[in-house]
Amino acid sequence: MAFVMKLEEYREQVHTELDRIVNFWVKYSHDTQHGGFFTCIGRDGKVYDELKYVWLQGRQVWMYCRLYRKVERFHKQEIFDAAKAGGEFLKQFARVPGSSSPWKCAFCLTKDGKPVKIQRTIFSECFYVMAMDELSRVTGDNDMQAEAEQMMDHIIHWVQVDPSGLGRTHLPGEMPSNSMAVPMMLLCLVQQLTDERGPRVVEKYREMGNWCVQKILQHVQRGGSAVLENISLEGGELPGCQGRLQTPGHTLEAGWFLLQYCTQHRDEALQSVAISKFIELSFQSGWDKKYGGLFYFLDVDGYCPTQLEWSMKLWWPHCEAMIAFLMAYSVTNNPTFLERFSQIHQYTFSHFSDAKNGEWFGYLTQEGKVALDFKGGPFKGFFHVPRCLFMCEQILDSLLEKKDS
Amino acid sequence: MAFVMKLEEYREQVHTELDRIVNFWVKYSHDTQHGGFFTCIGRDGKVYDELKYVWLQGRQVWMYCRLYRKVERFHKQEIFDAAKAGGEFLKQFARVPGSSSPWKCAFCLTKDGKPVKIQRTIFSECFYVMAMDELSRVTGDNDMQAEAEQMMDHIIHWVQVDPSGLGRTHLPGEMPSNSMAVPMMLLCLVQQLTDERGPRVVEKYREMGNWCVQKILQHVQRGGSAVLENISLEGGELPGCQGRLQTPGHTLEAGWFLLQYCTQHRDEALQSVAISKFIELSFQSGWDKKYGGLFYFLDVDGYCPTQLEWSMKLWWPHCEAMIAFLMAYSVTNNPTFLERFSQIHQYTFSHFSDAKNGEWFGYLTQEGKVALDFKGGPFKGFFHVPRCLFMCEQILDSLLEKKDS
Repeated sequence: MAFVMKLEEYREQVHTELDRIVNFWVKYSHDTQHGGFFTCIGRDGKVYDELKYVWLQGRQVWMYCRLYRKVERFHKQEIFDAAKAGGEFLKQFARVPGSSSPWKCAFCLTKDGKPVKIQRTIFSECFYVMAMDELSRVTGDNDMQAEAEQMMDHIIHWVQVDPSGLGRTHLPGEMPSNSMAVPMMLLCLVQQLTDERGPRVVEKYREMGNWCVQKILQHVQRGGSAVLENISLEGGELPGCQGRLQTPGHTLEAGWFLLQYCTQHRDEALQSVAISKFIELSFQSGWDKKYGGLFYFLDVDGYCPTQLEWSMKLWWPHCEAMIAFLMAYSVTNNPTFLERFSQIHQYTFSHFSDAKNGEWFGYLTQEGKVALDFKGGPFKGFFHVPRCLFMCEQILDSLLEKKDS
Repeated sequence: MAFVMKLEEYREQVHTELDRIVNFWVKYSHDTQHGGFFTCIGRDGKVYDELKYVWLQGRQVWMYCRLYRKVERFHKQEIFDAAKAGGEFLKQFARVPGSSSPWKCAFCLTKDGKPVKIQRTIFSECFYVMAMDELSRVTGDNDMQAEAEQMMDHIIHWVQVDPSGLGRTHLPGEMPSNSMAVPMMLLCLVQQLTDERGPRVVEKYREMGNWCVQKILQHVQRGGSAVLENISLEGGELPGCQGRLQTPGHTLEAGWFLLQYCTQHRDEALQSVAISKFIELSFQSGWDKKYGGLFYFLDVDGYCPTQLEWSMKLWWPHCEAMIAFLMAYSVTNNPTFLERFSQIHQYTFSHFSDAKNGEWFGYLTQEGKVALDFKGGPFKGFFHVPRCLFMCEQILDSLLEKKDS
């Protein structure tokens, strides 16, 4: 009984917090003149820079649509309209005219949609796919779904066949490497495109989903004792800092992506690896025993990472960890995972959430002090926090339903 | 008398520290197999990554040669040989075959010289010029001096005529801007190439030196109340974070570059601006009144910068500040500047210098705790610390000579 009350308390808390977060972004981020969203938003809601980052535009469209579709209290015209205006802004401006490929998206745009910066990676395009596919589910626009698929097919081409459309050149000293970010992102997109869709799409991306899982699993190294961010094309360890890099937040996120995949594909062996390696092991190595919280980067051999922010506590790894452990608990019923969730939840809510002005701070020092006090920036938008709260709310709802029945 | 003793004490201290720094790099950084230098060196001297960063290769060659030429106790075969091997490594490998311009240098090489990464900026090439010119002064190799000049002429072409050889493309939303780093770097190179050279070279770069000074001065904005890192091509303020960015370390470094220029060109009006705006004002706005030390980045309107490391205390701004205030004191005899030097010196020696293993830590938290414990990394090599100690030693020598006479 006390246990059910604890779950109810968590649900109440994430429910309330999600409302506050949505209110914050609805109030401060909409550009009613040009469409799309401002994401550089200060502590108290003031826009301090008007550049529009394409990752964050795509993510906000996706998140609004997901909330609109799945949570009754967000099924509101205001959310729908903002998502649609964001989608139109993306459709009109994200793709860069005259770049190396007609599908290449900018990384950053001016508020009226002129490209400012292009990255030679696939991520702007990936968030474009997420936005378009989710928006098509809300609007029922089949052309938009088709466009998401077309973009996806170009991304797969860049990743599996020929990256030259990204504008990259290979240098003789460059070590060809596999970063975990790529198969993780693609697995997320496969799940996005196929979820609740008909057999044509499911069939089309089945092989790709399997490929992503295999690529992610290759990052378990050193006889299963570590998950590494970058590995060689052959699946071995790379020399130097790049090869030794660990990113606990990424690994935890990959963990719950894999768990979702297992649930769809009923793969218990994979579920066990996802939990023991990607979730539990990452938590054990990534958690700061002295000050609490998850490190941003680590070196598997204990050298100091060269990233200046390695020891900072960022909001998003904590969001991923909360989802990962609650999901691990919900699929195993192992109370250890609920205890971990509780530990991370405790740190996260007490350190990141801003009781005064709403939303979460994103960047703390190792000791847990706010180091950067804005609520949104070039890499922090309306995404990790609401996704985490939304997913935790859904999982808690279903856990409580099970307890009732 | 007490005052002269203070200066002597400083001289003794920088002298001893310089010896320790040189010993550290001679002992741990030389790659005797391929030439060039390892720069990723841990707390206790261990190489933790073998990549060779071209900025740092060029800077170490330059610094060895400068010490060899100017400081009797470093006029040693070992220093000469290491500098020469570093210069040969650079000559052989820095320039990237088949890149957009035959003069484009890599940013990073494998230990045996294969290019790993190219930046679309001028800085690798600039440190190549510094290395080649200084090395030519030690070896008397006129071809090498000519090569430094040729490279310089390409850099000037990229900056003043056509940047396309750098591989950059201009995007419609990109705000054309002037970063203070560029004219600062070029002014440093003009001084490098012309110092103690004959009238041909001095004449050749006279106009360029003047152009750099004018470009640097444009960064004094807001009626003289702030120095900004990025401004528009017309010399006005840019919108957003980019426009509001301040980099106290850079500004202090520009300050002493300008002071050196004034000494050569006997320009008292410029000297006054260099000291009041670039040195004193930067110190006033950049110094952390709570914990001491200089911030890395600031926003002129008091917003939180988006750089995660904005509040960290880095070694190099403190090196630049020590040089700037000691030089300001030596040209004005104003005791305020010696007090500032003393204040920065006190913070710097007590926080950055590692009494146990030698060399300096590079990266502290805002509160002054070591955040990254390596002695060398992708951006920290044998340069800022020894240049600071060398220059302070020279200035203190000449101050003490004056007091004696």
